[in-house]
Amino acid sequence: MSKGITDKVAVIGMGCTRFAEHWDKSADDLLVEAAYEAFADAGVEPSDIDACWLGTFASGLSGLTLSGPLKTQYIPVTRVENMCATGSEAFRNACYAVASGAYDMALAIGVEKLKDSGYSGLAVAEPPNDGTTPPITAPAAFSFLAPAYFSKYGLDPEKGKEVLTRIAWKNHRNGSLNPKAQFRSEVPLEAIAKSPMVAAPLGIMDCSGVADGAAAAIIVRTEDAPKYRKDPMYVKALTIAAGPGDGVLRQDFDFTSIRENVMAAKEAYRQAGITDPRKQIDMAEVHDCFTPTELVIYEDLGFSERGKAWQDVLNGVFDLEGELPVNPDGGLKSFGHPIGASGLRMLYEMYLQFQGKAGKRQLPNPKIGLTHNLGGFPWQCVSFISIVGKELG
Amino acid sequence: MSKGITDKVAVIGMGCTRFAEHWDKSADDLLVEAAYEAFADAGVEPSDIDACWLGTFASGLSGLTLSGPLKTQYIPVTRVENMCATGSEAFRNACYAVASGAYDMALAIGVEKLKDSGYSGLAVAEPPNDGTTPPITAPAAFSFLAPAYFSKYGLDPEKGKEVLTRIAWKNHRNGSLNPKAQFRSEVPLEAIAKSPMVAAPLGIMDCSGVADGAAAAIIVRTEDAPKYRKDPMYVKALTIAAGPGDGVLRQDFDFTSIRENVMAAKEAYRQAGITDPRKQIDMAEVHDCFTPTELVIYEDLGFSERGKAWQDVLNGVFDLEGELPVNPDGGLKSFGHPIGASGLRMLYEMYLQFQGKAGKRQLPNPKIGLTHNLGGFPWQCVSFISIVGKELG
Repeated sequence: MSKGITDKVAVIGMGCTRFAEHWDKSADDLLVEAAYEAFADAGVEPSDIDACWLGTFASGLSGLTLSGPLKTQYIPVTRVENMCATGSEAFRNACYAVASGAYDMALAIGVEKLKDSGYSGLAVAEPPNDGTTPPITAPAAFSFLAPAYFSKYGLDPEKGKEVLTRIAWKNHRNGSLNPKAQFRSEVPLEAIAKSPMVAAPLGIMDCSGVADGAAAAIIVRTEDAPKYRKDPMYVKALTIAAGPGDGVLRQDFDFTSIRENVMAAKEAYRQAGITDPRKQIDMAEVHDCFTPTELVIYEDLGFSERGKAWQDVLNGVFDLEGELPVNPDGGLKSFGHPIGASGLRMLYEMYLQFQGKAGKRQLPNPKIGLTHNLGGFPWQCVSFISIVGKELG
Repeated sequence: MSKGITDKVAVIGMGCTRFAEHWDKSADDLLVEAAYEAFADAGVEPSDIDACWLGTFASGLSGLTLSGPLKTQYIPVTRVENMCATGSEAFRNACYAVASGAYDMALAIGVEKLKDSGYSGLAVAEPPNDGTTPPITAPAAFSFLAPAYFSKYGLDPEKGKEVLTRIAWKNHRNGSLNPKAQFRSEVPLEAIAKSPMVAAPLGIMDCSGVADGAAAAIIVRTEDAPKYRKDPMYVKALTIAAGPGDGVLRQDFDFTSIRENVMAAKEAYRQAGITDPRKQIDMAEVHDCFTPTELVIYEDLGFSERGKAWQDVLNGVFDLEGELPVNPDGGLKSFGHPIGASGLRMLYEMYLQFQGKAGKRQLPNPKIGLTHNLGGFPWQCVSFISIVGKELG
């Protein structure tokens, strides 16, 4: 069975570039910037790293994508890819290798020069071989969640749009407090609600942006962490649920829940001993690729009861001052989604918050955080969850 | 530092499709065939698997490439990619995860429908950003090794070609004894020597083929292995050296050695306690993408002294009946190179040989084997090495 590696490894250094349209920087530049911030933060030399895991979706092939720009000296560099959860997988695999004892110190790093990839944010997905699903854009795929949710729980379209708008508003408000975000301005509710329609009922302001960026983490075994810093971040749970693709075939699939999220959460909570996520988790970074995704995530992860997340949103439960702040750094909404980097960017916010370094968006002494990173479409995806902590035990 | 996971994990089941032009099978079909052979071999159910690692270069994106056809039930599936060493990386990462205690049983699997990828075997590599290397085909890139070696060690072109021909002849001879090989015929020396030129001095018979295939391994911790079988295969060393790309810039780079191979071998031998590879290793599967690659590998891995491998080749040292049989299954030469599958195919041969199941090519009681899998070009590549054993300790 799956047992997890609770408290076996710790993060002793992290780095993150600003996420933006970096027309003047290559993927190499972004990798070097994120890695060297992490080296400096941990107080280690590049030569202290024993092995690397690189996450990138479309900005390079193989470990050479990293070994070249970092000039690593013939150590292992492994590329992992799991669609939009690619960055999280770099972290997860590096953690296992360190926990196994194979390496004492690993670098997990993710990058995407998404602006160079030709990805517009409206790319048409490949139709499956079996013809069950026509080609569809990502906004369209996730737009299905909105009317399904509204209908099931009795929200009229105006009320539903108000809920989605409130999610985007929250995330932009948080991002306005973050110097590393792509978009760093509050956006008025009305501007979000009336933004040009992309895939009804989603306007452009319900969608995350297209950005470049990189983020990095340095991982050691927990017993070694005190040699490097007094305030490392401990890994409590790691999992990724890959769907078998039965979503569209199941009678009970109604677009108000993503089973991969539910299964990943169940497993992560088991590993970390979480029985009441709403109470036990102090903050979360979740995969708000589109506003209805975040709405459904609240319920899939047990932050809200089924059918109640929309009320929690309007009541400010997930705001920076709320009971369970979600996307305190601004989320994909403010950062954009450079695919290989996003999962590590989420962990970077946990790390800063635990150390009291989150500036104007600092939360009062959070001790347990969750990151959630989703790759694919609602009916077949991979759903990654990490639970990280400020303290051991 | 790197410590390895010597004897911490064991392989309890393996599967491998025939490597061939599988025009009538999809990547899904090949994955299912390899996985179910491994399940049956280990005597486990698909539902016993806790997590999967998938290696594929061009035949799918993300873990969904595997979770769909295998209908895994929301367990983790991670895709790894490291060019031609992709299949080996699936194995390596699965081993770490099991060794860490995160999972009790993992599936490592690799697949490539290379015939569907559009890859002709003569694909032109991307030129690097810095303009140091022009676009070049893989045969051309590796062809440089041949005249460099001949010149350095005083072989005239005819003698050199005789050595390369002998390597291809050996591998085809081994492959003729293997029902799972793509090419299953002995090829006369003269036919190899006079095959149409691809990149001088390499003829088409100096090159590995283009094939489809899949291979799989099931991994548990060593202490759990006896529950499943009495004759598992133990992992002694795992490493992959990624080059920083300084090859073409180094004064000492002369195309007669691939530094990534040397560094990977050094590390693998350290992990496994190998001090005299020629004597201590009983068999090896190496990355014979082109005949001169195998020649250089012999020296890089310490199987031959520098400048002496050509004599060892002609003396039959690496033949099935030789002192150190190399590519007993027929190698890339006989199997072709379905990228994501090759690394696991090499391990499959070690596994069969240890269990005495290698049929007409069975070696007399081999106990220590090595697999070597290379991705990239001589001047910048990733070089994977595993050392596996029939016994503990």
